[in-house]
Amino acid sequence: MQIVVNGLGEMGASLALAIKNANTNVEIIGVDRNQAALDQAAAMGLTTQTTTDLMTVAAQADVIILATPIRAIIATLRDLAQVPLKEGVLVTDTGSTKVQVMAAAQGLIKRQIAFVGGHAMAGTQKAGIHALDAHLYDGAPYFLVGDDVAAQRRLRTLLAGVGVQLIPMPAEQHDQMMAYLSDLPHVVSAALVNSTRQTAAQYPELPRYAAGGFKDTTRIGGADPQMWTDILTTNRAATLAALHSYQDSLAQLVTALEQDDPQQIYDFFAASRQLRQKFEEEMG
Amino acid sequence: MQIVVNGLGEMGASLALAIKNANTNVEIIGVDRNQAALDQAAAMGLTTQTTTDLMTVAAQADVIILATPIRAIIATLRDLAQVPLKEGVLVTDTGSTKVQVMAAAQGLIKRQIAFVGGHAMAGTQKAGIHALDAHLYDGAPYFLVGDDVAAQRRLRTLLAGVGVQLIPMPAEQHDQMMAYLSDLPHVVSAALVNSTRQTAAQYPELPRYAAGGFKDTTRIGGADPQMWTDILTTNRAATLAALHSYQDSLAQLVTALEQDDPQQIYDFFAASRQLRQKFEEEMG
Repeated sequence: MQIVVNGLGEMGASLALAIKNANTNVEIIGVDRNQAALDQAAAMGLTTQTTTDLMTVAAQADVIILATPIRAIIATLRDLAQVPLKEGVLVTDTGSTKVQVMAAAQGLIKRQIAFVGGHAMAGTQKAGIHALDAHLYDGAPYFLVGDDVAAQRRLRTLLAGVGVQLIPMPAEQHDQMMAYLSDLPHVVSAALVNSTRQTAAQYPELPRYAAGGFKDTTRIGGADPQMWTDILTTNRAATLAALHSYQDSLAQLVTALEQDDPQQIYDFFAASRQLRQKFEEEMG
Repeated sequence: MQIVVNGLGEMGASLALAIKNANTNVEIIGVDRNQAALDQAAAMGLTTQTTTDLMTVAAQADVIILATPIRAIIATLRDLAQVPLKEGVLVTDTGSTKVQVMAAAQGLIKRQIAFVGGHAMAGTQKAGIHALDAHLYDGAPYFLVGDDVAAQRRLRTLLAGVGVQLIPMPAEQHDQMMAYLSDLPHVVSAALVNSTRQTAAQYPELPRYAAGGFKDTTRIGGADPQMWTDILTTNRAATLAALHSYQDSLAQLVTALEQDDPQQIYDFFAASRQLRQKFEEEMG
């Protein structure tokens, strides 16, 4: 089986390796705009063929996995809808938002090409093929999106040995959940970092006195700007709804403190503690 | 030397033990409203005397350490200004905010009683004497506040063997830095938890899919509500200034996303990453 993996970054290369390790008779064709990544993939025996141009190998693929940044996934889905593909090809992606991906896949779907939207809750702060990890996906939730049940069954078979938890989910629910679990925390953390700029300039020793709370809440404020710009702009409505909900919640506390109302302040923190403790019990 | 420690919670009991281990000829007199905490302190040999009423032992103290919640520290400082104390007594506290503590200590200071405001960047999510840890203060920044240089020298001598980093700092600077390093992150984290309530009710499986970013940014949203109500209301002006700065920073991103302006969104995350990386190099 020839599997074309478009994008040999941390997510794509690690998924390719995990699929290769879990299946016999799989050949990986690596596609990346970065020749050095292709050379490294070939040198380690991950790929049997490499190219910088997906369109030169798309027609020979039994499976196409789109693992580039999300905006490139959307553009590629539209391009693929215009070119000849092998009979019975399965197309899937690894993008972090799914409503726009499913919309972009409609051209393929109208041609009766099997498509499954995919997204794994895996990945680190690292990037690129240097972050390759055969165990990156171990135990990770892996969402399957779309109406093509037969296509989902084929992807399940391919991923059976990878060790992910496969979870079918509507695109809208996926994106709304990600808005709260992922998009909102990244904005909140980055805004926290940005808001300290003036005080950190006034007191350059500030970071030396940071304790665990500041370190933890600002950590993902250091995430990749291009990646998060793409994720937010492709999940705009759900992220804006989450941000407005967050602004309302924050404003409650600000008003309570402006009014010096200890009962309202207590209730705000008590509600948070109660809900966070419930989350703690339920989080993996 | 008789050291009265008022409040045998995590901070007070751990500090008492660290001082006892680092100094000879020290006797700890334990004061707490909780008799079980006093019994445990006595049983483990931490204290030579215990009482639920500070005023019955205040006059025999060479050193008085106020380690209760911050509002009780402020009230106790005012009470102590009205009662007889031993000639040469040194009074200090462990409260998380310092402007209001220094104001409350003016009655003692006017009586020429030696006072140093203290605050260590130590402590965990745990509470009470069960959280006692002889090494809690190891290497922690420990701020010394006030104008009484001789009193600060005496406290330095007492804490010399405890292993803290003693840092003199004006009360206003302390409170402004804490507003950003501690108060604001706790509000931001609790607001994040509270804002997910509706979506978590709609999709009860939500917390199961939480990854590291959500876990880290919401962790301190589980902190003690009474403690944070007290800290915020005793550091109100500085915390409100930090909150308003944060709301402005957040609003920039919300506006950029509402206007679907990828360059502004990119700039927001790029600024955060650049500053967070600088912090990372400087954080202890």
